[in-house]
Amino acid sequence: MTLSADERSRYGRQILIFDEEGQERLKQATIVIAGAGGLGSPVAVYCAAAGVGRIVLIDKDVVDLSNLNRQILHATPDIGRQKVVSAEEKLQALNPAIEIVPIHETIDAENIGDLVGDADGIVDAMDNYPIRFLLNRTAHEKGIPLFHGAVRGFHGQATTIVPGETPCLSCIFPHAPPAEVFPIVGVTAGIIGMIQAGEVIKHLTGTGALLAGKLLLWDGLNSRTEEISVSANPHCPVCGSPQKE
Amino acid sequence: MTLSADERSRYGRQILIFDEEGQERLKQATIVIAGAGGLGSPVAVYCAAAGVGRIVLIDKDVVDLSNLNRQILHATPDIGRQKVVSAEEKLQALNPAIEIVPIHETIDAENIGDLVGDADGIVDAMDNYPIRFLLNRTAHEKGIPLFHGAVRGFHGQATTIVPGETPCLSCIFPHAPPAEVFPIVGVTAGIIGMIQAGEVIKHLTGTGALLAGKLLLWDGLNSRTEEISVSANPHCPVCGSPQKE
Repeated sequence: MTLSADERSRYGRQILIFDEEGQERLKQATIVIAGAGGLGSPVAVYCAAAGVGRIVLIDKDVVDLSNLNRQILHATPDIGRQKVVSAEEKLQALNPAIEIVPIHETIDAENIGDLVGDADGIVDAMDNYPIRFLLNRTAHEKGIPLFHGAVRGFHGQATTIVPGETPCLSCIFPHAPPAEVFPIVGVTAGIIGMIQAGEVIKHLTGTGALLAGKLLLWDGLNSRTEEISVSANPHCPVCGSPQKE
Repeated sequence: MTLSADERSRYGRQILIFDEEGQERLKQATIVIAGAGGLGSPVAVYCAAAGVGRIVLIDKDVVDLSNLNRQILHATPDIGRQKVVSAEEKLQALNPAIEIVPIHETIDAENIGDLVGDADGIVDAMDNYPIRFLLNRTAHEKGIPLFHGAVRGFHGQATTIVPGETPCLSCIFPHAPPAEVFPIVGVTAGIIGMIQAGEVIKHLTGTGALLAGKLLLWDGLNSRTEEISVSANPHCPVCGSPQKE
């Protein structure tokens, strides 16, 4: 298959970086984005703009006024609508040539296998750790890379988990922090979402180096990143060797 | 003046960070964003979402298909429309309570003083250095902070220029790099735009530390920042003492 003239024009500036071959890899790819909120919005927008061919977007919520300081896929007239429907509309207008699959469901242990399918990547754009850990377990079982992001206030974190190569999310965070209504400024979610989307694009096109085995910490109060090396836990209940029979 | 109930709900998560006083400062502020493209799009979206009260957006171009891998204020149906009109529509839908001032003009030495007015900040979201240097000179003359950003490929840079306190753009970059149609992936513009918007919000609310006297370098191939201290040039034709009479 080859790119159309429209695609060569739309993606021209990035084809200068990763060639038409890279663009075709994006076009053939499916990614699952779990969450259409503060993180999921920028991830979905920039993956759609970059031409990721199929984006499965999962969110159980409807748009609330208090979301709009950061969840940029949604606007004021969307209040009360399903987030995934609001998102689909914007993403499809941005790029009609890709496929958006909106799924208005709560992710749980029963449905997660089917929801993820055989995607090329899973983006953790959730705001709670129980579902993050479900995503992590499924990513491990299926051998699909997981792009983790989390935010609070002016601070955020991101890492890319490659099953079989890097520590998994449960190695890095053995215990979930307590659930809370956390303070957040939109740009923090924007930064971390951009980093996650960048990792997805690098993974799919084979460009650059991933945040594999590295936890990026974003300090927005000083506008800087820090990088921490993370280690696999040999006794990890998800990816540790005792669990492999 | 006080915030309305709607405003308290819309901005609730960030009022937890910088209080209602900070939110009111955002509401009272005017920022000028020069450019409604790859950088201007994320800056404008997140400043609007955060509740910056008046956003003056200047761009001379119309939307082109080749813009859409990164200029997320614009969608496919906007091709051929003025960028500032396309942008105004999206920003006003996102946040009807703020004022958007769209200006479809080429910035030049004649009009820049009027265009900038007495803004609280100027965002350099341009893709060319001649206009960047005009913005820098005007920012210096009026004593208005300038939020600089620039991108190429997977790399970007940002700094905040506070006239009288930090080196100016001409101190840091005495010579413009050659003009070119540069390679760019959307997420790079997104990252740098987020950093610029974050600097604007910190400046307006008095939160955190600015990139003042520091040039942030973003390396998207490795997902990390580096920070370089920059020095004032005493012979700078814009801000150096020989020019002050």
